Amino acid sequence: MSPSPYKQLELEFKRLHAFRGALSLLRWDAAVMMPRGSAELRGEQRAALETEYHAFLTAPRITRLLDRAQANAQGLADWQLANLREMRRHRDHAIAIPVSIISGLVKATSRAEAQWREARKHGKFELFAPHLEEVVSLVRDKAALLGQALNLMPYDALVDEFSPGLTSSDIDAMFKALSRRLPALIRETIALQDTRPPLPISGKFASAKQRALAIEVMTAMGFPFDRGRLDESDHPFTEGVPGDMRVTTRFESSEPFSGLLGALHETGHAMYNLGLPPDWRDQPVGRDRGMGLEESQSLLIEMILCRSRPFVQYLRPLLEKHFAVSGPEWETDNIYAHLTRVRRSLIRVDADELTYPLHIMLRYELEKELLSGQLAVRDLPAAWSAGMEQRLGIKPANDVQGVLQDIHWAVGSFGYFPSYVLGAVIAAQLYESLRRDVPQLDAELARGEFTNLFTWLRTRVHSLGAKVTTQDLMKAATGKPLSAVAYVRYVENKYLESTASSAAA
Amino acid sequence: MSPSPYKQLELEFKRLHAFRGALSLLRWDAAVMMPRGSAELRGEQRAALETEYHAFLTAPRITRLLDRAQANAQGLADWQLANLREMRRHRDHAIAIPVSIISGLVKATSRAEAQWREARKHGKFELFAPHLEEVVSLVRDKAALLGQALNLMPYDALVDEFSPGLTSSDIDAMFKALSRRLPALIRETIALQDTRPPLPISGKFASAKQRALAIEVMTAMGFPFDRGRLDESDHPFTEGVPGDMRVTTRFESSEPFSGLLGALHETGHAMYNLGLPPDWRDQPVGRDRGMGLEESQSLLIEMILCRSRPFVQYLRPLLEKHFAVSGPEWETDNIYAHLTRVRRSLIRVDADELTYPLHIMLRYELEKELLSGQLAVRDLPAAWSAGMEQRLGIKPANDVQGVLQDIHWAVGSFGYFPSYVLGAVIAAQLYESLRRDVPQLDAELARGEFTNLFTWLRTRVHSLGAKVTTQDLMKAATGKPLSAVAYVRYVENKYLESTASSAAA
Repeated sequence: MSPSPYKQLELEFKRLHAFRGALSLLRWDAAVMMPRGSAELRGEQRAALETEYHAFLTAPRITRLLDRAQANAQGLADWQLANLREMRRHRDHAIAIPVSIISGLVKATSRAEAQWREARKHGKFELFAPHLEEVVSLVRDKAALLGQALNLMPYDALVDEFSPGLTSSDIDAMFKALSRRLPALIRETIALQDTRPPLPISGKFASAKQRALAIEVMTAMGFPFDRGRLDESDHPFTEGVPGDMRVTTRFESSEPFSGLLGALHETGHAMYNLGLPPDWRDQPVGRDRGMGLEESQSLLIEMILCRSRPFVQYLRPLLEKHFAVSGPEWETDNIYAHLTRVRRSLIRVDADELTYPLHIMLRYELEKELLSGQLAVRDLPAAWSAGMEQRLGIKPANDVQGVLQDIHWAVGSFGYFPSYVLGAVIAAQLYESLRRDVPQLDAELARGEFTNLFTWLRTRVHSLGAKVTTQDLMKAATGKPLSAVAYVRYVENKYLESTASSAAA
Repeated sequence: MSPSPYKQLELEFKRLHAFRGALSLLRWDAAVMMPRGSAELRGEQRAALETEYHAFLTAPRITRLLDRAQANAQGLADWQLANLREMRRHRDHAIAIPVSIISGLVKATSRAEAQWREARKHGKFELFAPHLEEVVSLVRDKAALLGQALNLMPYDALVDEFSPGLTSSDIDAMFKALSRRLPALIRETIALQDTRPPLPISGKFASAKQRALAIEVMTAMGFPFDRGRLDESDHPFTEGVPGDMRVTTRFESSEPFSGLLGALHETGHAMYNLGLPPDWRDQPVGRDRGMGLEESQSLLIEMILCRSRPFVQYLRPLLEKHFAVSGPEWETDNIYAHLTRVRRSLIRVDADELTYPLHIMLRYELEKELLSGQLAVRDLPAAWSAGMEQRLGIKPANDVQGVLQDIHWAVGSFGYFPSYVLGAVIAAQLYESLRRDVPQLDAELARGEFTNLFTWLRTRVHSLGAKVTTQDLMKAATGKPLSAVAYVRYVENKYLESTASSAAA
């Protein structure tokens, strides 16, 4: 007796999962290990595997099996029904895009990424522009076809790939709420912080020491180094599949915190993936629930928890141990003041929690205009400058501080940026419930204890995989629909607190 | 108009080439970067890609295209005809073995490899024996089917996978010539070397310094670090495809030379692959011409050129520079004496140039007897001991020093061992012609100049890819058929030279 249509689908998707893992390694290696001259070769390898992945997913056999499994769904468990829904979702996304566009994108983005690096090295947007044009043109075609197939506006179809179920009207509503409060809050915060500026922190902090510190904190958080790695790359990222999670960060010798916080941000991603349901690990339902939720996990760790006073209390002796530093500038309150300093700045990845959403709003607006054709690639640096001035009152002195700072467009990730703000909003709403359910959280953080934290996250978020929608997950975890209310409350509390020392006494 | 059958085949094999590159990276990463706990996951990824590779190659479409391309071969260039022949060869090898034997071997060898490690840990062959029996039985079936399909004796069919066109009668002839001369030459050499033993060399040589030295020499040889890497692993190896070649070595702090020579051995492999014809780089005709020729390139570099007095003259100041060493033991003649020391020893990978072939002859004899059924697996340790005593006059004290030392049989690589000696024989014959064509070679080596060397190798060997047979390549490059004559002349000259200093004055 041959296996049921559903079981046959599970086998097919198990194979796809193996391809996903191989592709992830090809990307990780390209950013961390690969010699510079091998980019084109790697592009061909990725294209071949992506093409095959796409061919599997769009084969008539899969459509037939999906239809037959749907018609015989009585005996299936809840998670299997959700799996079937996710299988169909992946197939619908894949089948909407012809192979020519997919392999074209893989090749174009491989070239564009290499040229983005070159352009950054020489500070010349012109080196990158023609390659970005090629990518934009292909993404535009992709968005149009995907929109038709999914019955969504083209840009929303791209968003749906990263954050299923979210549309630009959701994003617009969220951005509107933030726009109402953030500019004033940024002004108030900067004014308040200027009344008590932190003592400056300086020195040289060798990469090896920063790495040892990051590994100690990651280990305390439970990152499994027998099934994962920490490496360095130009831009921190997480790759891999559960069973082999690879995070990267960037250590700069003049910066004692940025490499650590980059690593912890990525550890948030990694812990999410490591906490995904192991029984469904090679099935679509066992994957993460999109980039919004992904980003909520990294921001909850980095921004909310690790830039908190209790965490700094835990961190302080570790800084002494690894960097052999002491003095008033290394006291908890002063470090905390540094980690929560709000400044109007040019680089998104270095931006603080409060100004960060404004960086995203700029990118959101520009990428929609690029795709709609309202904005030409050659006009992008000027539009970037104007947007920065309008939103943050500052202008980049060159393209490296401006339009060349992010890798996303080079690799074809349009529709991705909003998930950062979505992630911040989700993180703040989860955090409110987490504090309610784990009242001793601050005291535990101050002792470097993360078990209850991650148990809560695993139970309420990680272990659900892609079984429920983000909206349903949030309702179940927090009792409320997803909105920016908790986020605004969180940033107001945090940045307008009246006195210096308070928590975790 | 659709592309010709031949052109369609080129496209199919281009895709296969991309899969080969991806698989090579998965193997490299597993040995160099992968966290220990991720082995099972990686196994699934490799199995998925290999299964797909095999499915491509054995698809009825490929057979149809091969037949149609063959019937319309008039307009094809020489290299395309050779490509067609190679395509068919790969397909013939792949299609001859049913999937049941392939997957049986994958499972049996992964069990056997794990048990081989256990058996080594406990020094107990019995733990490994039943698993080796299973592997032998499956390899026997594979050899029989492959032999039928290729019209070869079963063992020759296995050899043909690694060294196309070579049979056991060629190997027997070669081994006979070596057997006639080597045992006496080993006796004479050891007696001669005992009259002038080198001064001992000792010290601690940090990995970072050894690595810097290896990189300096590899750079001088023209290894392109923008399209390749040097890393560390338990055992030196080369992975990758032209465009991204990755070599590894092992640095031991008490050994100043072994890590360097391991890296240079692998550099020989890498330079061969980097010199393969770029225009055919993603086609079967653009691949290496089998393991015999592969090994000739690493042995020519490591054994013949880098264990020569001229090379040591070049190396000596580099040792001073990187290790800050000096004294009589670091003089050219003394280093050379160390690098060419001949000893009867038990472990193949540590064996010198002269005794190495005897290690291989033992394995060749034993693996043929295992496959023919003349020798039972349980009698293997005794046969090993007897063979070592007969050939080298020494006996292993335990199985770890004996039959458990090599991984080859555990992973099903029968028919592979002869390619090591074939490589040495090819290398010596090429070397004779190289010296004739590049008379200033020694002087160049002594100055660390490798351009003429690699130009010669690229012209005569590398750039031919798999276009001609090894035999034809050797006739064209050396004017003589492949034989052990040059090898015997080379080792006699090298090891029986009457006085210490001679070359490159």
